[in-house]
This record gives sequence, structure tokens and C-alpha cells, in this order.
Amino acid sequence: MNARIDPPLLDTPARHATGTTSHLAARLHGLRSSAVRDLLAHARAPGMISFAGGLPAPETFDVAGIRAAADAALGEAHTTLQYGTTDGQPTLREALATLMTQRGCAAGAEDLIVTTGSQQGIDLLARILLDPGDTVIVERPAYLAALQVFALSQANVLGLEIDGDGARTARLDALLDEARARGWRAPKLIYLVPEFGNPSGVRMSLARRRELLRWAATNDVLVIEDAPYAELHFDGPGPPALRTLAGEVHGAGNRVVQLSTLSKTIAPALRVGWIAAPAWLRGPAVLAKQSLDLHTSTLSQDIAAHYLRSGRLDAHLDSVRRHYAERCDALVCRLREQFGDRLHFEPPPGGMFVWARFEEPVDTAALLPHALERGVMYVPGEAFYAERPDTRTLRLAFATVDPDRISEGVTRLAAALQAYGRSR
Amino acid sequence: MNARIDPPLLDTPARHATGTTSHLAARLHGLRSSAVRDLLAHARAPGMISFAGGLPAPETFDVAGIRAAADAALGEAHTTLQYGTTDGQPTLREALATLMTQRGCAAGAEDLIVTTGSQQGIDLLARILLDPGDTVIVERPAYLAALQVFALSQANVLGLEIDGDGARTARLDALLDEARARGWRAPKLIYLVPEFGNPSGVRMSLARRRELLRWAATNDVLVIEDAPYAELHFDGPGPPALRTLAGEVHGAGNRVVQLSTLSKTIAPALRVGWIAAPAWLRGPAVLAKQSLDLHTSTLSQDIAAHYLRSGRLDAHLDSVRRHYAERCDALVCRLREQFGDRLHFEPPPGGMFVWARFEEPVDTAALLPHALERGVMYVPGEAFYAERPDTRTLRLAFATVDPDRISEGVTRLAAALQAYGRSR
Repeated sequence: MNARIDPPLLDTPARHATGTTSHLAARLHGLRSSAVRDLLAHARAPGMISFAGGLPAPETFDVAGIRAAADAALGEAHTTLQYGTTDGQPTLREALATLMTQRGCAAGAEDLIVTTGSQQGIDLLARILLDPGDTVIVERPAYLAALQVFALSQANVLGLEIDGDGARTARLDALLDEARARGWRAPKLIYLVPEFGNPSGVRMSLARRRELLRWAATNDVLVIEDAPYAELHFDGPGPPALRTLAGEVHGAGNRVVQLSTLSKTIAPALRVGWIAAPAWLRGPAVLAKQSLDLHTSTLSQDIAAHYLRSGRLDAHLDSVRRHYAERCDALVCRLREQFGDRLHFEPPPGGMFVWARFEEPVDTAALLPHALERGVMYVPGEAFYAERPDTRTLRLAFATVDPDRISEGVTRLAAALQAYGRSR
Repeated sequence: MNARIDPPLLDTPARHATGTTSHLAARLHGLRSSAVRDLLAHARAPGMISFAGGLPAPETFDVAGIRAAADAALGEAHTTLQYGTTDGQPTLREALATLMTQRGCAAGAEDLIVTTGSQQGIDLLARILLDPGDTVIVERPAYLAALQVFALSQANVLGLEIDGDGARTARLDALLDEARARGWRAPKLIYLVPEFGNPSGVRMSLARRRELLRWAATNDVLVIEDAPYAELHFDGPGPPALRTLAGEVHGAGNRVVQLSTLSKTIAPALRVGWIAAPAWLRGPAVLAKQSLDLHTSTLSQDIAAHYLRSGRLDAHLDSVRRHYAERCDALVCRLREQFGDRLHFEPPPGGMFVWARFEEPVDTAALLPHALERGVMYVPGEAFYAERPDTRTLRLAFATVDPDRISEGVTRLAAALQAYGRSR
């Protein structure tokens, strides 16, 4: 994995001879492709059982509801097919604000900027906040496409270890020291996924959330709370969001930006996400978004707005949660049966991923070819580290695999591990 | 116009006091909002006749065709609603390659990367090609959201004057001297809209196109050919695209990147554009696009693919061309009647804009409030210059205004000019 750009492509100095590769910007050097997206090609092999991609289960899509929403949107074709305003369709922003408020995270439409998926939200914030050489804190392990964004931003990245209660906030001061020791700037922002992290699956505890906010306010660090999986809880909602808690912590209120998306709740194809930002950030964010893509698809936004107003979301989410909880259980049980103490993991309370670590020194990147050969895929954990990867780790996504196939997939994984052991 | 970010927002040094505005990246300083997008708010005033926005005429949308394409796409919901590959849906890329080949610009699906509108194409190319301090050449006047991208890239921008035959390529060597004289790097790329430029409306001559390509190859400069309006010709297609001609010019073939979009041909709301890039650029472009938004809306892409395969595009484009040609004629005639020699312009052979300049010293930004008061809007020309704007210029978009309203709009503009004269 970690498929880097082929070095000759980037490093050829003979600009005139090869054409123009030396025209590439410095920020491209060393940028890694997303291991997950590169793996998707293998996922189409016949019979492959893929625990790799973080995709929602397509059989859970509310196709009838989305079709009705699309019909309604296209009934207003003169606006739905036209250019829209950069910050998003007013009807969608209203519907999203209502949804957030229902979920205990009070917001008004004016607080929100619609983005082309929450991936664009990460990129947009990096663009308006980060100069090359700025320092960013991420969880260890972290969402890999956020790591890509920070690499493209030429930021320095510090990793904050996690445990079963989420990011280990007691270690934050040590990261300040580490930045100093490495000659880096003081951290400007911290990016984290407090609810069912990707890849960790962990839910951050209430105490840690408060501690993080106090630390951020004291040290003038911005907090980006990415919440793509927050709706996918198996046993009810967890602690309040960082954005909600920030109101209780002196100096934190204007330092928290929350990113959300409809990709895991309605459909990824819409590419509709949103930013809930403090007032001082909104002007610059809208300005940058003009340059990025003018605005997010009006058609997608109008479909999303009609869907949210249809009242179908809650029943749909109940079904998705049941689906995923069942699959998560199946994966957890089968992994325990097959591997016992040889594989460590915490059963996640929601989301789409089991994050696991082999007790023995197994290099999961070297294990992968054996797995692919036997028709099973996962993402080697090294993809989720900015540096010093823990190569014994792997991410297993359960959402798209039905329980029978999960069982077979884990059996194949055990066979792959045996073959890997023999090959050493 | 040129609504800059409110300086106090960006320049407040009291980081702890105000929260965090000093956390903004340096590239945000001095970034201008799009004058056109800011004007859209006024466009909704009752009775307003807007020559401002570069929007397609919504009454020309092929709603029935798009609805049928959406139905067909949603019939394959498991893929149409799911995540897709970063470079775009294979069926769409095939359909776009076929379209390009039909238009005389031979391409294969593998040459193309789908983008979220061609705006993202500009931003994506800037991201992978430009380091801060790199030098870029644009037309004078230039597409303003491209100017925004280059400002966000912290590039130095040189302006190449245009006349009725397009960019004045004979002046290119002088720009090399100018870069040197200003202590800037040698130009890395030139961005231009050769077919019905925005705002100029000009079509670049064949001789100038060839001259540009020879110069770019000799001086190792990349050419970004942005072609959003190329299908909107009133009297048949023009000279071959730069991308096509590049094959005939030694050393130019791997230096031309073409951007296109379905915004002006099917519907802006889809946010579907594409890049036709030489091989060396594709890997880096796909890698960067992962960070930008993972991929463009699968739903939009599938709708576009179904629409293109439906065979409706050519008849639809004929209708759009007739519509726009009629409106262009109406605007040209009325401007001549009302202003005679006091307003200079070339009737455009296609596209959506008349670019005009007052003979007398009229500041079109100062004229605008008088125009708004009388219920007519346009974009003051200063928005289209990176520096040293020609403040007597203005852009008039005719696509969305029917001929009767055009007549009334020009009458209002004349009244505004009278009032402006009295107010001096």
C-alpha cells in the first residue's frame, strides 16, 4: 500500500526532455495515494470479500425515498438545474440546521456552508487555515484522506495516541514539547473524529472531550471535529458533540469547526457535506469555496433537502443501524473464534470499522497479497499513520458484507495468516 | 465591486482577544470575492434586468431529457448512489471521449478526469502545478474565478492583452521581459479561454493559436485551454482547439491541458466538468482530486452519461445556439442604437457575453449604483483584471434575458449613464 507516485514521474530533472514533470508543485512530492481507493480496483475481482472500502451498504439505500426526492427536485427544474449560491441552497441549509438541532447540536442555517462531501470540508479548512510549515495534530491512527490533505498543505503532522476512550488528551502537552523539539511551529489545529473514528471505531469519552476543549482554548488551537459516522450508533447516541460542549468551555466556542456529511446517512453519491463554522471563519470559507468549485451540485442539494423534509430519515437510519450492528457483531464473533488472543481489538459502539492489531509481529502490508490470493481484502494499518506506522494493525470494514460472507472472509483471512507464517 | 474581505476580519492582530482570525493562512490575505457571485443577490430584486451573471437560460434546459436520464441513472441505484472512482465513472468518460472525438478533438476515456465543474479543474491544476511565487499568464481581461484561483495559489500574474483575434501572442516575449524586470520567475503556465472568452466574447484566430503553441513549446510553458463556451457558436465551429493543434506543433503535445464542462450544454447544477490531460499530469491530478472531494457526484455523472448517450444533445444545442444568437443580436442592436460611438464592442461570434468599453471616461463601478437604482445590472470590468484595471469596461451577459427585456434593460442603462453624468 502507501502507493506513492512513481518517483521517476516526479523527480525527473530533465524538464525539457520529458516534457514538463518538473512543472509539478513542490507539494506533490511524497504525496501518497489513498491506499483504500487504490484497493477498490481489487474489490471488483469475482468472489472477493472486501473488508477494505469504507462504503455504506448499497442494499440499505432508501432508493424509493431518494427517487421521490429527485422527482420533487426536478419539478423545480429552473432552479434545481441552475447555478446556486456558494454557501449552499437555503432550503438545504435550513433542513440541515433542523437536523442538527434535533440531534442536540443547535445550529441556524446561517452557521452552515454546504460542501462537496465532508472531504471538501477538510480540504477547504486546510486551504484557509494552513500555511506550509504549520503544525497539525491528528489522532494516531487517523483518517487517511485527512492525512493526504495535510500532506498537500505541506503541514507538519503530530500524532496523538488513542485508546478505548479516544484521543489521549493527557498527552497533548507532550506534543507541544515535541513540536518545539523538532523545531516546528506551535500546533495551529487538531483534527479528529470523536464519534466512531476512522479507522479506530472508538468513541471519545465525555471527560476527554472536555479536556480537549479546555486545552484547545488555553493553547489557542482550532479544533476540527469530523463527524461522518455520528448517526451510526448501535446503542444510542453518545456524549454531546465537541461543537455542543464548546459552549460550556470558556474560550472554546469560536475554536470548533464541525464537519458532517450525508454520505453515510443518505448516499455518498450526492457528495453533500457541510461545515458548521464560527462566524469569523465563514467569510473566508465561502470565498475559498468560490475558487474550489463555485458551489456544490444544486441538484444533489435539492434532492437532499427534499429527502430530509420527507421525514423518512429516522426510519431509514434505524434500519441502517440494525444492519451495521448485526454485521459488526458477526465480524467481532468470528474474529474472536478464529484468532482468539492473537488479534486485539475493541468492539466498536458504532460506525463501520473494526480496528485490530496482531499480538505477534505480523506485517499486515506483507500479509495482504496472501489475503488477496484467497479472496479477502482489508486495509493495512500503515496507511493511517503520518509517520512511524504500527505495521501490525489492520482496518476491517463490515458495513457492506453480509454475515455469511463475513464468516467466510474471516476464515480466508486466517488461511492467509497461515500462509504468511509459512512464507517467513 | 471587488468586495475584498473586510480588512478588520483578516488583519486583527489580537489573536487571543478575537478568537482566531490570525489563524488564517497567508493566501487568504487580499483574496477577492467574485464580483459576479456577490451581485447575484441583487439579481433577485423584483423587476431587475440582469446582464450580470453568466448563467445559462433556464428555459432552454432539456428538462424532459434530464429527467429521463435521472430515471435511468436511479434505475441502477446500487452504483449510482454509491462512492465512485476518483477519475470518474467509466461510462461518462467514454461518452465524453466520444463527444470530443465527434467535435474534432480526438480523445480516449483514459485521457480524461472528471471534475466537479471546470472550476475545480482550474483549481486542481493550480494545486498540482503552482508553488507560491510562480508566474502565470492570463488574458487581459480574464475569467475572474481563474484570477481568484491564481490569487489563492499566491502566484504572480501577468496579463496578455487581447484584440478581436484573441490573445496578442506577439506580446508574449515582452511578458518574459516583464517577469524578469519585476524579479519574478519565468512563466510556468498560461491560462486562456480561446473560444468566446469570458468576459471578452472573442474567438482566438488560427494563426494566433499556432503562434501560442510554438511559443509555449519553445519557452517550456504549459497551456491551460478552458473551453466552457466552445459549443455555443452562432455561425458554426471555429478553428481547431489548442489541444487538437498541439499535435501539429513540435513539443506542444504534452504541454496542453484542456478543461471542459457540461454546465453550459446540459446544466450547471450537475457540476460535471472534465480535464483532458497529457499522461504525465494524470497521476498527480487524480491524487490531488482524492484530497479535494474524493470524486465528483456519481449521480450527476450517471445522469450526464445517460443524457449524452440518449442522443438528445445536438438538437438541444441547436436550440440553445438559436436562443443565444437571437439575444446577442438584440443586445448588439440596442446598444448601437442607444450608445452609438460612445460604447465600443465587437459583436461576439458565440458564447454568452458582450464586452464593452465607454469612449468617455466612465467608471463603470461608479455607474453601477445608478444602474441598480433603475433596475438593470452588469459586471463592472475591473473585476476581470489582476491589476491595472480598465475601469471604462463592462460585461453584459445576454443569455438569460429575453429580447424585449434586453431592449428595456439597455434603455435603463442609458438612463443610468445620464444620471451618472449629472452626478459628476
